[in-house]
Amino acid sequence: MSAVEMPGVLMRVYNLLETYGRLIDEDNLEAWVDLFVEDGHYEIVSRENVEQNLPLSLILCDSKNMIRDRVMSLREANIYNLHRDCHLIGLIRIESEMPLVGSAPYSLFQSTIEGDSRLFSVGRYNFELVEHEGRLAFRKLTVVVDTGAIPTLLATPI
Amino acid sequence: MSAVEMPGVLMRVYNLLETYGRLIDEDNLEAWVDLFVEDGHYEIVSRENVEQNLPLSLILCDSKNMIRDRVMSLREANIYNLHRDCHLIGLIRIESEMPLVGSAPYSLFQSTIEGDSRLFSVGRYNFELVEHEGRLAFRKLTVVVDTGAIPTLLATPI
Amino acid sequence: MSAVEMPGVLMRVYNLLETYGRLIDEDNLEAWVDLFVEDGHYEIVSRENVEQNLPLSLILCDSKNMIRDRVMSLREANIYNLHRDCHLIGLIRIESEMPLVGSAPYSLFQSTIEGDSRLFSVGRYNFELVEHEGRLAFRKLTVVVDTGAIPTLLATPI
Repeated sequence: MSAVEMPGVLMRVYNLLETYGRLIDEDNLEAWVDLFVEDGHYEIVSRENVEQNLPLSLILCDSKNMIRDRVMSLREANIYNLHRDCHLIGLIRIESEMPLVGSAPYSLFQSTIEGDSRLFSVGRYNFELVEHEGRLAFRKLTVVVDTGAIPTLLATPI
Repeated sequence: MSAVEMPGVLMRVYNLLETYGRLIDEDNLEAWVDLFVEDGHYEIVSRENVEQNLPLSLILCDSKNMIRDRVMSLREANIYNLHRDCHLIGLIRIESEMPLVGSAPYSLFQSTIEGDSRLFSVGRYNFELVEHEGRLAFRKLTVVVDTGAIPTLLATPI
Repeated sequence: MSAVEMPGVLMRVYNLLETYGRLIDEDNLEAWVDLFVEDGHYEIVSRENVEQNLPLSLILCDSKNMIRDRVMSLREANIYNLHRDCHLIGLIRIESEMPLVGSAPYSLFQSTIEGDSRLFSVGRYNFELVEHEGRLAFRKLTVVVDTGAIPTLLATPI
């Protein structure tokens, strides 16, 4: 990767990750889905399983349609699970530019409607991005969570 | 917004927000006041009220003098409320350049003098900035807090 | 500091701090040691002691060999202290370019193997960097912790 072009790529990834976290925080999950390409892959795995090379996922959507379906079912279920998200995404690593692969740590806080905030999950986003209609989009996002015990049935995206 | 100029603006906003968080963390509130222009507006509102379009604020200062007064009264009261702040400010969004409007999520941790740290508040900074004496300054900062129950009388800025 | 060169320096510091946090999070402490120069200095001090000008450190390594020794003894002890780290590093301040001095706030979360995550430490990195073999490296890193009660014998780097 050339030192000169690095900031340009980093800036574009920065903007995509900013959008990613904000759309979830704004509960605009329908727009969040559009950050993925049609054959996009969204997966949540525990760090324990990654380190032991276990193929188990907490959540696995291997197409944009599956991601969209998940959001639609959340819309029906979420009446039982009201909360507000706040994503803090850390320093971004660009591992390669072709393909565009990298990662960033995150912390996710949830607040109840009553205003109690707590740490919900920490971990790392591992992403592979592609150009799509003049902007970057997720070809693959694997969320490796350090925090276990995610209620996967009702969970909003991390 | 041109793609070429974007990094320059983002960098300047980055530096302003960095200064904002650090000055509070250093308890240098007098210098923090100077990040606002004379008719600057500083407001803390709950996300619940924002979403319901309620005009209620937890804290509302609609001039730099009011912000300064608040800091002065904190200086008298703070002997009862000793703590240390640590701001983690997330990825920054630039919504428009003219006027310069954007937002960023934050998490704020507080530690007692004895060294117990806890999550104090999460939410989002919504800002409008202007050029002022060769640098950026806050024309308006609205802190939308996800976390309720802020003791507003004794609270330092978020 | 010239406004034009600032982003270049900031970007290099950004990449170094990104690597710093990630290598600890990946438990790749041997590579983490190599971010320091031979006469590198790594110190953890409490904010209370800094403010009172007390010379006490929680941890003090004043050469790369001492840092390396510490990692080696952690490797022997860590069987009793299994956890996973997640570093969120905040907005970076460049104070001067010659010497290259600056700081950044951090929050560090730890998760047990069972998946319970908690806030472990918040504070600020104060760094002095030098060019070393074509890249930036730590000449000095002082971690000023707001959070007390660090178990210093078994603690991994912050």
